[in-house]
Amino acid sequence: MSPFTGSAPRTPEWRHLRVTVDESGVATVTFARPEKLNALTFGAYADLRDLLAELSREKSVRALVLAGEGRGFCSGGDVDEIIGATLAMDTAQLLDFNRMTGQVVRAIRECPFPVVAALHGVAAGAGAVLALAADFRVADPSARFAFLFTKVGLSGGDMGAAYLLPRVVGLGHATRLLMLGDTVRAPEAERIGLISELTDEGRSDEAAQALAHRLAEGPALAYAQTKALLTAELDMPLAAAVEMDAATQALLMNGEDYAEFHAAFTAKRPPKWQGR
Amino acid sequence: MSPFTGSAPRTPEWRHLRVTVDESGVATVTFARPEKLNALTFGAYADLRDLLAELSREKSVRALVLAGEGRGFCSGGDVDEIIGATLAMDTAQLLDFNRMTGQVVRAIRECPFPVVAALHGVAAGAGAVLALAADFRVADPSARFAFLFTKVGLSGGDMGAAYLLPRVVGLGHATRLLMLGDTVRAPEAERIGLISELTDEGRSDEAAQALAHRLAEGPALAYAQTKALLTAELDMPLAAAVEMDAATQALLMNGEDYAEFHAAFTAKRPPKWQGR
Amino acid sequence: MSPFTGSAPRTPEWRHLRVTVDESGVATVTFARPEKLNALTFGAYADLRDLLAELSREKSVRALVLAGEGRGFCSGGDVDEIIGATLAMDTAQLLDFNRMTGQVVRAIRECPFPVVAALHGVAAGAGAVLALAADFRVADPSARFAFLFTKVGLSGGDMGAAYLLPRVVGLGHATRLLMLGDTVRAPEAERIGLISELTDEGRSDEAAQALAHRLAEGPALAYAQTKALLTAELDMPLAAAVEMDAATQALLMNGEDYAEFHAAFTAKRPPKWQGR
Repeated sequence: MSPFTGSAPRTPEWRHLRVTVDESGVATVTFARPEKLNALTFGAYADLRDLLAELSREKSVRALVLAGEGRGFCSGGDVDEIIGATLAMDTAQLLDFNRMTGQVVRAIRECPFPVVAALHGVAAGAGAVLALAADFRVADPSARFAFLFTKVGLSGGDMGAAYLLPRVVGLGHATRLLMLGDTVRAPEAERIGLISELTDEGRSDEAAQALAHRLAEGPALAYAQTKALLTAELDMPLAAAVEMDAATQALLMNGEDYAEFHAAFTAKRPPKWQGR
Repeated sequence: MSPFTGSAPRTPEWRHLRVTVDESGVATVTFARPEKLNALTFGAYADLRDLLAELSREKSVRALVLAGEGRGFCSGGDVDEIIGATLAMDTAQLLDFNRMTGQVVRAIRECPFPVVAALHGVAAGAGAVLALAADFRVADPSARFAFLFTKVGLSGGDMGAAYLLPRVVGLGHATRLLMLGDTVRAPEAERIGLISELTDEGRSDEAAQALAHRLAEGPALAYAQTKALLTAELDMPLAAAVEMDAATQALLMNGEDYAEFHAAFTAKRPPKWQGR
Repeated sequence: MSPFTGSAPRTPEWRHLRVTVDESGVATVTFARPEKLNALTFGAYADLRDLLAELSREKSVRALVLAGEGRGFCSGGDVDEIIGATLAMDTAQLLDFNRMTGQVVRAIRECPFPVVAALHGVAAGAGAVLALAADFRVADPSARFAFLFTKVGLSGGDMGAAYLLPRVVGLGHATRLLMLGDTVRAPEAERIGLISELTDEGRSDEAAQALAHRLAEGPALAYAQTKALLTAELDMPLAAAVEMDAATQALLMNGEDYAEFHAAFTAKRPPKWQGR
């Protein structure tokens, strides 16, 4: 637990998501409304935003898995509980809602631990963007993505998708996916770089857990800084990026894991990572 | 027609391009000098720049197809009428000419409707960059790209190509294509993400028209905003992009098409898009 | 030789790299510690930084090949001579070292001639980043990349890798490669866009030399400007990029090679490039 925690209490119960943390420091967040294909509610967004903030300030986890129970990962915003509800909102409320969803994406990109999306079945709308924002997309052959925003009359640029998707699959594919909102199945998703690891049928949860545990047992500070640099350097010129890398490596060369690597290498034994 | 049109008259006749607009709001712009493989002239560039500006302010079309008559799409600047002519120009004229060609690319990226390039045969030089600037590249197997600028002694960065191509196919492929100027045939172009839709031989015009009509009959404002965000967010940090998305979605959630989607979904009928 | 050389003498001997320049203006820089898989030393980094600066100000070469002797290209920083040595450094020295390595990458991206990496066997750690920074990666089927920084407890963002790799292969693949540090073999590297040209077994040096000679014999100023624009426009908005392209083309349209192209084309003979 970080010393930099103040008066804010931990949330005693996450009511809109299933959240577990195991002894390795792997948090698993599960969308658990399988009867609705894990459609998102206002509460689910709010919980995800607040959970990521809490885990980030506590420094209590070393990797996070985002998963969906049942037939798919997440079908996006609930047609009744979100689309219907937003039709009754005024402009300020609409802006508040859309800012909240964007904050979730920023939190996924900026939290100091890797996020692994475990994908099977549908990842649609906001569900597709949450998967896109993760550091890794571990998917089985049933996985499919649909950035279907234009199909409900909205912009394909939702929650940062028009920023992230071109940087993952290139502007040509991103334009097609966001403009048309058509479904992209696993083989195409893998071909264009939208999937990090393709597993056997039904094995994406298991593979995502294995990856998260590999990350949690590794040099966690090195991983956290790698993630932070990948996120930050998308928005930086080369000269600044090179300087930021230099300062980061100088910092980590003072750290325990780097010395441990050298000691272990010299002694011909595997390193024991401390994550600092 | 937009209420925000002032005194400027419509151009009565486009002399350097063939331009048609059908009842669905699809404009088709055809390079129609097939005996010269649709080589571009000063007039063709100027007409394309002015046409895009006129259509953008009028809001009279909902999608645009860019096509070439005859054996290919467009072989680029005419060797005599452009290369020969520029050899006699002074520095200010050369800058004027090159700014004009860049304005065409900016107009394609910034106009408030999707642009679909219908490609067969050669897209070379400026023809390749115009195709690259389009939102969709619908190509048949005969299509080939050649960013051949260095082969005439010029920079591969012409009309924004050194900006756009790395964002479409990645820096590695873009360096190879722009530096060497070699021809990229359809299979490779598809593999690296330069083609949006590969059609059967001889069917790219038909498929491009079908796509443009699908877009014109859909939620046009949602498409226009998706395009605007894709263009703008290439140049923005994540935090600003997320905020821009939030404001855009809040705006569109007040729009008619979003309400129509929900009404249609509830009534189990297809939505009737208004484009606003 | 450029008239803009002052009092600084040429380095009489490069002690930590093998450097040759042939009559075509192709420089070949070879990592030549094959018994150590060409592991880098402080001297090798310093020589590469200084050599690129010297060649850039002299304008004496038109293309550069970066190659490795023996079983592989370069295994990265030497475990004893670099990792061991850095463990004894203070913070200011660590920052100095990491800035130097970043300067090498900036020099590769910013030097006024194309850089071709000739790859076979391993390109690991800093070796992988040097290859990544090159304009072309010509590789044989034995080539493999390992951005293994996290495996030694450091950040995957080393020497600009967290800036460059997402721009070459997309953010998804880049995250996987930099975070996990696993080996990427030639077939995958080619599929994701990390290889520019895949050669037959054992032919990457020969193919890299052929490419460098093609570039050296071509319109060198056009190539240099293409490279400069590709590097600069990654960090620019579209509007500025288009303006920069316009100014560059206007400049080159006043140059000798552009006039030579037109004269040669008209006379139906191949152009004789001057590189200016």
